[in-house]
Amino acid sequence: MKRTSLAEWPCSIARTMDLIGDWWTPLVLREAFHGVRRFDDFQSSLRLARNTLNTRLQRLVEDGLLERVPYQAKPPRFDYLLTPKGRDFYPVLAAIGAWGDRWLSDEDGPPITVRHTACDHETHAVVVCEHCREPLTSQDVEWELGPGFPDRLVDRDYVQARYGPDARKPGTPWNNQ
Amino acid sequence: MKRTSLAEWPCSIARTMDLIGDWWTPLVLREAFHGVRRFDDFQSSLRLARNTLNTRLQRLVEDGLLERVPYQAKPPRFDYLLTPKGRDFYPVLAAIGAWGDRWLSDEDGPPITVRHTACDHETHAVVVCEHCREPLTSQDVEWELGPGFPDRLVDRDYVQARYGPDARKPGTPWNNQ
Repeated sequence: MKRTSLAEWPCSIARTMDLIGDWWTPLVLREAFHGVRRFDDFQSSLRLARNTLNTRLQRLVEDGLLERVPYQAKPPRFDYLLTPKGRDFYPVLAAIGAWGDRWLSDEDGPPITVRHTACDHETHAVVVCEHCREPLTSQDVEWELGPGFPDRLVDRDYVQARYGPDARKPGTPWNNQ
Repeated sequence: MKRTSLAEWPCSIARTMDLIGDWWTPLVLREAFHGVRRFDDFQSSLRLARNTLNTRLQRLVEDGLLERVPYQAKPPRFDYLLTPKGRDFYPVLAAIGAWGDRWLSDEDGPPITVRHTACDHETHAVVVCEHCREPLTSQDVEWELGPGFPDRLVDRDYVQARYGPDARKPGTPWNNQ
């Protein structure tokens, strides 16, 4: 898939979207979370073209979300298993699913429900602040330049406009002034 | 953009991904959360092709995440403003960003940090169960057929295989047995 590479943008959303690419990758991961591990099973369940599936699986293996584990030598056949990095993507899918349940369900309600076996309740994902545990909303967050923001971009107009003249605040550990 | 339509799949992840399409839409929304509202500002900040941007904005307006509000009559010009449905997508971006910060940052750390102004701490999104407020992980969730799952699909082999012969349990409000 030829496209603009977002992998090097100083933004974790852009980098993640570079990896995801399009609509198929989250659905491949959804299948993996349902226990699907073989090429033919991904293919028959998602009904996508084999070359498309192959591209997506390759990328997920290259980027370390899935690992290819041989289960047969002749001919060579592989299971695609979630790694810790891949498993950690589940909360993103849960947040996507919760938004879709709220806004894209028909009048009957959500097509699939999620049961949290730890507390044995039907649940939805809620995205909260790791500190105070209250739901995060766009109205009560601000963005600041982080330690990994490239020095060479800090003086750019759009960075100064967005993050202010104090974009890199004195006293932060990554400030060299 | 011609493609398989996932909009009618009985899955809120698939439906949401149908709407998102590819990597640009979440970034258009990211810009909107940063206060960008005009076509030229989206375009100069994301540096994507104007027709691509136009397609994405149109879809977001059609699907009710943005609304087009005129700010000039001759020639007609519009602001693109987040609706409640669009604003509610912020937690999904926050979850994507948190995953990207964990797994795609270089050794310096995340490029951008998020401050939760409500508690005045630098934060990351955590995806929790709405009931017990513990983090949701793939290991402690199960999926069940919901009220909006189409009746015509319940007897399909893949549905029975995935959700079991009790896929629609007696006693649930949407069960007609």
